[in-house]
Amino acid sequence: MRRMAVDEVVSMLPSWRPGAALEELAAFLSDSESLAPADRVAVFDNDGTLWCEKPAYFQLAFFRRELEAAVMARPQLAERPEYRALLGHDNAALAELGLPRIALALADLCAGLTAEEFSYRSARFLLEEQHPTLGRPFAQAVYQPMLELLAALRVHGFATFIVTGGGTEFVRAVSEQLYGVPPEGVVGTLIEYEYLALDGNPELRRTGNVSGGANEGPAKVVNIQQHLGRRPVFAAGNSAGDREMIEWALATSGPSLGMLIDHDDAGREFAYESVAVTFDSAERIVDVGRREGWTIVSMLNDWSDVFPTRLVVE
Amino acid sequence: MRRMAVDEVVSMLPSWRPGAALEELAAFLSDSESLAPADRVAVFDNDGTLWCEKPAYFQLAFFRRELEAAVMARPQLAERPEYRALLGHDNAALAELGLPRIALALADLCAGLTAEEFSYRSARFLLEEQHPTLGRPFAQAVYQPMLELLAALRVHGFATFIVTGGGTEFVRAVSEQLYGVPPEGVVGTLIEYEYLALDGNPELRRTGNVSGGANEGPAKVVNIQQHLGRRPVFAAGNSAGDREMIEWALATSGPSLGMLIDHDDAGREFAYESVAVTFDSAERIVDVGRREGWTIVSMLNDWSDVFPTRLVVE
Repeated sequence: MRRMAVDEVVSMLPSWRPGAALEELAAFLSDSESLAPADRVAVFDNDGTLWCEKPAYFQLAFFRRELEAAVMARPQLAERPEYRALLGHDNAALAELGLPRIALALADLCAGLTAEEFSYRSARFLLEEQHPTLGRPFAQAVYQPMLELLAALRVHGFATFIVTGGGTEFVRAVSEQLYGVPPEGVVGTLIEYEYLALDGNPELRRTGNVSGGANEGPAKVVNIQQHLGRRPVFAAGNSAGDREMIEWALATSGPSLGMLIDHDDAGREFAYESVAVTFDSAERIVDVGRREGWTIVSMLNDWSDVFPTRLVVE
Repeated sequence: MRRMAVDEVVSMLPSWRPGAALEELAAFLSDSESLAPADRVAVFDNDGTLWCEKPAYFQLAFFRRELEAAVMARPQLAERPEYRALLGHDNAALAELGLPRIALALADLCAGLTAEEFSYRSARFLLEEQHPTLGRPFAQAVYQPMLELLAALRVHGFATFIVTGGGTEFVRAVSEQLYGVPPEGVVGTLIEYEYLALDGNPELRRTGNVSGGANEGPAKVVNIQQHLGRRPVFAAGNSAGDREMIEWALATSGPSLGMLIDHDDAGREFAYESVAVTFDSAERIVDVGRREGWTIVSMLNDWSDVFPTRLVVE
């Protein structure tokens, strides 16, 4: 294969402005051509890395919509504390209950659904519902520069995977359509299924149990090995929960790149920080990344467009 | 896409003799062209379906070899009952201890290894060690007609996956090389990993724990959904542990095929039966399959060649 010149690589990334991030990316893509095909593995976080995660996780907005519908049919549901806090948009109560407990309560809400039913509802929500502030459907609130990066990696022979703290099945519902990543390429937080065979008709139904805990932090590294059996040399994330995955991708002697998206663009998206907390320190993940030599991407400075100007899905 | 004629399909399967199995297969492949691309999903059991499983599972032979090497360094290992039975080829003791306990003891043997180390040892064993009776390395004891079928399915746009009761990582070590299935396409019985970060060096090491139990029976259906997020319309197996997976593939209104390999060829391979046991019955899986309309493949009658005549790997 002819080695691609750096300016050819740059031409595949039109929404990236000239600067250190683009230079590091182009150099990595060019260098990656020395890697064996099987070693060209790239992993991406999803919430805040491929699609927006504010003002709330899209999955939380989806579950709130499901909850509103369920309560119409069964009003007594609204008495459960987690559901009452969600329906009332009571952020103080939600913070006190904590995301894990909220997540489990919401998993209960969809228990009994088949994979197909859950996938259909998730896809319909993401494709049809409007994001509350961005003036576009949730599915259009994906980052155009990252779509270009996914494509450029594939042109360079990379297998591209999504490694998300979000629900595996929620992301799978649109991963092929939005990102060109098939269902088996999505590794996330996973609900357990129950296999039933009633009257000889096999069925697979969601339970309310999470299989193996949330896919965050060190669990992302473990699950990359368990589900994909591959070792990445490229990892992109935006929060403290992506730290170990990025460090894992960089722990190689060959070409590698760890990328952190810095949400510093209050005008076009949202401005917020993620803090990495250990037993004796609290440090902004951006500062961790700078110290460890990651490629820090400023949404404000490095991206000429944030969202697709044309619809990516119809 | 031009619909492929049945005789064109047959030409892709030269090691299959004319007969009902080949006709059903060719009709299915031809019919499958009406399926949406995302629905073209095929799953294969491995032991006894893609490669030979006699006189013992290849993985058991691998572990015995690892055990022999470990005992040279640490003779006291031989005192553990499971290891003593294995080293002494004491089949009565092995049967009494049971495969699950043997499997856990063998998982302990490789605890502490990295994924790369385990993969390297597995691949070297399969590619270099001779099968005890077939006069070829283990990696050459794969079924030539099934390799042709994998290729024909891919030509028809199928994604092909391996869903094995064997160790995920053992099969992944050679799945791309032998079957053209990348590591993330292998769903099996999975060892848990431990993530360590000592002095800033991230490491992933095998534990002795099995994650979520053996991948057999109904677990195969659950794990197909959890790991692949796809629903198969083609499933091939050879034992009672494949029954639910085959029934799952057939539970669709569109084109589908469930295939059972019947090991009835004592001359070229091995002749043996698998029995499906429920709370009130015991029935040969071949009879279950006949009753349920599966495609039964007689190795003796339906295959002109069993093993590759040319080396499939070097």
